Parts: sequence; structure tokens; C-alpha cells
Amino acid sequence: MELDTAKGMKDIPPEEKILQQGVMDSIRRIFERYGFAPLETPAVERWDVLSAKYAGGAEILKETFKLKDQGGRELGLRYDLTVPLARFVGMNPNLKTPFKRYQIEKVFRDGPIKLGRCREFWQCDADIVGSQKMIADAEVINLILDVFKEIGLKVMVKVNNRKLLNAILSYAGIKREKMEEAIIIIDKLEKIGAEEVGKELEKTEISKESVKKLIWALQLQTLEDMKEIIGGCDGIDELEELFSYVKGKNVFFDATLARGLSYYTGTIFEAFLKDSEITSSVAGGGRYDDLIGNFIGGKRVMPAVGTSFGLNVIMCALKGKERKTNTRVYVIPIGNVKWGLKTAEKLRELGVNADFDLSDRGVTKNLAYASSFEIPYAALVGEKEMKLKKIKIRDMKTGKERLLGIESAARAVKK
Amino acid sequence: MELDTAKGMKDIPPEEKILQQGVMDSIRRIFERYGFAPLETPAVERWDVLSAKYAGGAEILKETFKLKDQGGRELGLRYDLTVPLARFVGMNPNLKTPFKRYQIEKVFRDGPIKLGRCREFWQCDADIVGSQKMIADAEVINLILDVFKEIGLKVMVKVNNRKLLNAILSYAGIKREKMEEAIIIIDKLEKIGAEEVGKELEKTEISKESVKKLIWALQLQTLEDMKEIIGGCDGIDELEELFSYVKGKNVFFDATLARGLSYYTGTIFEAFLKDSEITSSVAGGGRYDDLIGNFIGGKRVMPAVGTSFGLNVIMCALKGKERKTNTRVYVIPIGNVKWGLKTAEKLRELGVNADFDLSDRGVTKNLAYASSFEIPYAALVGEKEMKLKKIKIRDMKTGKERLLGIESAARAVKK
Repeated sequence: MELDTAKGMKDIPPEEKILQQGVMDSIRRIFERYGFAPLETPAVERWDVLSAKYAGGAEILKETFKLKDQGGRELGLRYDLTVPLARFVGMNPNLKTPFKRYQIEKVFRDGPIKLGRCREFWQCDADIVGSQKMIADAEVINLILDVFKEIGLKVMVKVNNRKLLNAILSYAGIKREKMEEAIIIIDKLEKIGAEEVGKELEKTEISKESVKKLIWALQLQTLEDMKEIIGGCDGIDELEELFSYVKGKNVFFDATLARGLSYYTGTIFEAFLKDSEITSSVAGGGRYDDLIGNFIGGKRVMPAVGTSFGLNVIMCALKGKERKTNTRVYVIPIGNVKWGLKTAEKLRELGVNADFDLSDRGVTKNLAYASSFEIPYAALVGEKEMKLKKIKIRDMKTGKERLLGIESAARAVKK
Repeated sequence: MELDTAKGMKDIPPEEKILQQGVMDSIRRIFERYGFAPLETPAVERWDVLSAKYAGGAEILKETFKLKDQGGRELGLRYDLTVPLARFVGMNPNLKTPFKRYQIEKVFRDGPIKLGRCREFWQCDADIVGSQKMIADAEVINLILDVFKEIGLKVMVKVNNRKLLNAILSYAGIKREKMEEAIIIIDKLEKIGAEEVGKELEKTEISKESVKKLIWALQLQTLEDMKEIIGGCDGIDELEELFSYVKGKNVFFDATLARGLSYYTGTIFEAFLKDSEITSSVAGGGRYDDLIGNFIGGKRVMPAVGTSFGLNVIMCALKGKERKTNTRVYVIPIGNVKWGLKTAEKLRELGVNADFDLSDRGVTKNLAYASSFEIPYAALVGEKEMKLKKIKIRDMKTGKERLLGIESAARAVKK
């Protein structure tokens, strides 16, 4: 046996996990603040569900882990949380809408391992199913803004609309059947620049003329300019309504934002860090009015809009903010192990995260142990302290010690 | 495509998930109160790790989901959190001990589907690695007591010791090579009774005489009696020390407690609900001083003691305590959709979980929607309210309405 994790999978040791849990708690808190309800679905799904026509598509299926159960049933590990949501909606026809659900769970992709890209990773999704109104799109964008405020990261959100993108492509003379391909190329604008995108577009037999017109129109900065050049359209109307609802100054129209996924039907958006070297988006999403309806057989119309947070990128942005422990105080008994136990018990009853010597070691070794975990306080309890019904609280950073009653001690070591 | 979950797997819809999250939060809170640190390991492990000699064993391997990645590497879905812990300890030789870690994650078993038994389920584990002292065993038992206090369930904990069990088996004249088999049979005492256990033991070629002696000794109620009959032994010494540390009156010695798993080496314990029809244990665990050391190749001695909480059984015990929503107030704009948005925004800024009409519906439909989710309050905002800078708060149960300023409203709807 080789003592290792599976390729592309990794452990999250305590100091990283503490930070990650803090971030996930923040996300969850704001999801609930906005009225989203939690849903859990299994990591393992039926293969026919994952590979259904309107599910994730051929590309993602190549990266999907496949397995069988003992009965020979074909199964797979989910690659996203959207297909499980569509399945859940389909299986629950009496669901009250709008159905606002969030899901913070792991997904799996057996893909190439780029830097920081894992084959098992967390997704944090929030979706509103059953409203076609722009206020729902605004709700999701405002949610993104508040999540990052809670986490303590400055972001800006770029917004566009697939209907507008289609209108621009029409305006440039690009035919309907070429549009999807063109959108995937436009999506690279930020990364590879206008010139390269132009070259790639020309390769797809779109005329030089069209490419020129397209690139020019994409670089228009405002909805007003857009309206003037390409004329009014649903996409512009929707964006105007949307912008009347979103809060703050950090939401911008960006005609070049395309997002690769083909299932979007209207609003699309992506959040990026401000003042950061990280250029990947930290959240993204959009409106997908057809996906769920198609997925469940076209019997019901099920408009939806949602977002997904990139926990890995967020964790990169928070590098250096790790904390080694949630423990506030480490109790060291001097002489009798029970004194440590009793003191820890009392502190815990008062709501303090307290640990104590479980190895019957000397004071020096115990202090070194507490110090290695960066526990902020030590509590020393010997015969004298037990008689006085006090404990000696040591600030591990300054070395300063104080003799305190249990309740004062609890207050002193709490954050 | 059949719109269904995989066999033996199920969705956890919001109302059940809200309760489950509350329970998991309680467990996590107490784990951290006791100084345990969170660890995350992947759901997918290398097959050679899962099937290693000192891992879960042949029986559990039969129920393990097997898969391959694109590179043809053999992998499996983990069946517990103990093997990943052992692997993690092995891969991190500089880990400071005692290493107190907790892990709340899903595990997978492709086994027969009994009532309420899923092929994918949560495990909540807390383990102390690197202390062979009885105070560590006590810490884990006290942890169990405090977790259930936090959840609000009354439990009792039965405690035994494998060394004592072995001594009892010796006393009854049962040979070393028969002991493991005998322990697995003794484990059924509670379920099938002394007579049936006797019969099963006789089938294994243990003499009638031995069986009689064994059953008799197992029914001794106190450590004092035990010492008198079978003589002193390490197991009794350890139990006596352990009982001097555990708190409360709900921890009992029970010589018949055996626990099936073969890896336990000392203390074993199981928690059961008091005043409940549910007879399955809600938590269990024990000391396993050899498992990790053996698993990582015998280069280091790694004593350990830990516990696992049965989230499914706990959820059964809490049946009827589900809550449909975490939302406190549903905002209904009368006339202008933006009034709803603004009001919800302000309430959220004041820390209130607030939702609002995203479908531009009438008041009656909106009230019915709020009512169907059992949201405790509605906030009605029309032109009059906007002018007065007030909102009308309606108690959804009593129908009573009050006109309040935003801050009073926030206070009124918060729990």
C-alpha cells in the first residue's frame, strides 16, 4: 500500500479547514438571510440522470467518475449541483415556487489537474426556481455582494445578457447556427485579447466584416450606446430593469462577458476580486429558463436563476488568514490530573473552547504544546489555585499571568 | 431517463435538512468546545488504502463502492472516517500529539437496504490520537454526554473494556483463538437474550461448562463483584480509573457490552436514548491502540480513542421537530415591487432572515405562500407605509398586525 491520497484529491488539514469552515458559515448565513433553504442530494447519482440530454453535456461527461453498485446499476459521481436540483424539482411536482434553495456540497470531476484544480471540490450554489422576473436576478446579484461583504473581500460584478449577446451577433451578421460557437470564443476576450479572438472567430468561417463589427460592438461601454448602435432589444430592457434593482456601485455592464455554458438564456454575471492578483472569478451564474423544464421532460416551464461560489479561489484570496485552532485556552494541571479536568469542565460550561493535558506531561512540555497550536491562553492550576478557587491565566503571547476566579477567567479568554 | 435517485440514496429536502444542520452545528460546537479540530479528507480514496491489511477488513470491503479514474487507477468511496484518519496521521509524521480531530462527512456503503439504512450517510467522528491515558477515554465519554445535552436528548452510556472481556473469557476457560468469535456473539446478548447467545456459543465448540460460566460472569453488575469472582486485571483497573473521571450519573459499567469491531483494545462504550422506543445506539466508540500504528506500517506506536455519532438514529429521535424554514419574515409589497426590495434589504442589514415577493403576485397569494412555508411573520408595505417610513408586521399565526418602524420591526420578528 502506498500511503497517499488519490490523484487530484487532497486532505484539508485543521488550520486550512478552520478558515474554510468560517467562509462556508458566512456563505450559509447570507444564503439564509436572503431566504434560501438548504437542500442535500447524494454525491452518487444514476448514470442516466447525469447523462440525460439536457444535463451537463458530452464534455463534462468525459470527466465524470462512473461506478456500479452490487446490483450492476450504472451510477456516477455528480459533477455539479444543478443537475441534482433539476432532478429534485422534477421529482417534487408539488414544490411551492419560487423555490429558493442553496446547497453547499462536494462535486467530482475526473479532469486534468491544473494548479489548484482538484478532482473533488466544494460548490456553494444558490438558485431561485420558478420566477422569470428580473427582481429574482437582482436578488442573486445582491446576494453575491452581501456574501463577499460578510467574508471581507472586495468584489465587483460584471453583468451581461445572453439575449443582448445574440442581438449583437445578429447585428454583426452572424447566423443563428454559428452563435453558440461564437459565444464560446468571445468568452476568451479578457484572457487572450481582441486580436486573438478575431483570429479564432475568422477560423469558424465568420466573415472578416462580421468579426470587425462584432468586436467593435462588444467594446461599447454603456447600455445607451448599445441601444443607439444595435437598436432596442429584450436583452437591453432586461438589463435596464435589473440595474434599477441592484445595490451599490460595484455592479457593471460588460458586453464582453459571455460565460461558456450553453444553458444560459438571459442575465449572466461574474464576480471578480478588486485589488487582487487573482483574475479568476470568485462567483458566477445567470438565468437558465429552459434547463429544468427540458430536463424534466418539457411538461412544466421552470424559469430559474442562480449562482455558484468558487470556494477554492476564495480560499486562495484568503491565504495567510489561516488559524491553527479554535481553542481559546489550554488547561495545565500542576500535580493532579483531575484539577485540569475539573477546570476544563467549568470553562466549557461557561461556553469557552477549552482543552487540557491528556498526557500527564510537565508544565514546559504543555506550554510548548499550547504554543505550537497557537492557543491564545494557558490556564495553570496547582494546589494553591485549587485552594483559592482561582486559576492562573497566562497570555501565551506576552507571557503575562493573572490569578482569576473561574468566571473572570472565562470572560478573559473568550474573544 | 428515470427521474430518480440511485438505489439506497436519498435527497434531504429543506425541512429535514434544516433540522439536520441544527444537529450537526450542535455536534460541531461541542467538538470545538472540547478542543477538537476539524479535518477534511476526500470521499474518494485509493483502493489499496481502503483494502490495506489493517483497514476495515474483508466484510466491509464487500460493501465498498469501487471505481477507476481516467488513468486506470483503482479507487473506492470511503466506508468510514477511521481509515482516512489513519492515512492522514501516517502521511503527517510531524503532527503534534495528542492530535484531537473531528470530521463530519459522508461515507458510502453498498450494502443491503434495511429500513432507514442508506448507502450514503453522514458520520460525525471525534478521535484523540497519541494519548494512552484513561483521562482521554473519559474526555470522549464526557464529550458524548455534552453533545446530547446540547441536542436536547437524554442518554445513558454503557461502558466496558476489551481487556476485561478477555479476562472474563479466560476465566470461563475459552481459548485465545476463540475469543474474537465469542465477542461477536456476546455482542448480540441485548438483542437475542442469554439463551440464544448460549446456543450460538455452543455451536462454536466452546464447552457447555464454559458457556455457563461465561454467561454467569457477564451478568455481574459491578466492578467489585467482577474483581471478586475473576480476580484483578488491567481491564478492571482501567475502568475504575475511567469512572473516577466521567461526569454525571448516566454512565454505567456493562460487562455484556462487546461492540462488534475487532480493532478495539481497551475501553468500549455505547450511548443509548433514555425513555425512547429507539433501541439502536446513538453514539459509540472505544480505544484502538494498535490500528493506526499497524496501518502505517508499525513504525510508530499510536494509541487512540474516539467516538462516532449516528446521525440517522438521532434524526429519527427528533422526528416531529422539523422546521420548514429559517426565514423569519416575508415582505409583501403592495403596489411597487421596489418597496419590497428596499424593505427586505433593510431588514437583512439588521440581521433578519427576510424573503420577499419575487413573482409580483397579489397580497392573498403572497400570504398563502408565506403560510405554506410557515414563515412566522409577513411585512406589508404599501404607499402609506413607505410615506410613514413604517412597515405593517403581521403575525401569521394570530393574524394580528402592527405598524412599526424598521428597527422595531426587525426586533419583533427576530426570535
